[in-house]
Amino acid sequence: MEEGRLMQSMLLDFYGELLTDKQRECYDLHVNEDLSLSEIAEQSGVSRQGVWDNIRRAEAAMREMEEKTGLIRRFTQIRRGLESLQAPLRELARSEEERARELAREMSETVDALLNV
Amino acid sequence: MEEGRLMQSMLLDFYGELLTDKQRECYDLHVNEDLSLSEIAEQSGVSRQGVWDNIRRAEAAMREMEEKTGLIRRFTQIRRGLESLQAPLRELARSEEERARELAREMSETVDALLNV
Repeated sequence: MEEGRLMQSMLLDFYGELLTDKQRECYDLHVNEDLSLSEIAEQSGVSRQGVWDNIRRAEAAMREMEEKTGLIRRFTQIRRGLESLQAPLRELARSEEERARELAREMSETVDALLNV
Repeated sequence: MEEGRLMQSMLLDFYGELLTDKQRECYDLHVNEDLSLSEIAEQSGVSRQGVWDNIRRAEAAMREMEEKTGLIRRFTQIRRGLESLQAPLRELARSEEERARELAREMSETVDALLNV
């Protein structure tokens, strides 16, 4: 997924529920389903211009929320930290010590689960 | 910190910037500085009733945001997972293997840093 598209998808994931229903619907179809404006207009019963306004306002509202709260930035920082644990855990999983391998396996499972929260 | 107070503090941390300035100011003085309504009224130049309304509306707005987005719940889940890595890392720090101890130390630093993000 390209950078801009990934950010749009994260904006929707974090703040989508704070949009109006129409804004969320149009933005979701645009970003996640990759439909054209005309297709979204047809599907959502809004004019093509209305679809465009909803998408534009949705993105502006969500970008402002992120600018104010920084929650995606914070989450991304934690995610990168979790990912950085994967290499040392893989190395530990090849330890001579059985107990170290066991602990590495348990911790890897925890880290993998947290990357899906 | 008692449970309710901790949640109020997290609400402010996550969503405070999405409140009006007056709401945020009153809520912060109430929750984090533990001032009385009269003290907040004096300090913020709002009537005692106005302070109460700001606090009540601030909390309602932030609780609704959390209900919709679930971001505090998600964050708390990740936090608990990170905390659960601390015991196995402490055990690994006492390994017979020097390399295992070294990796445990590095990972502990990462986990501690992430708990402060």
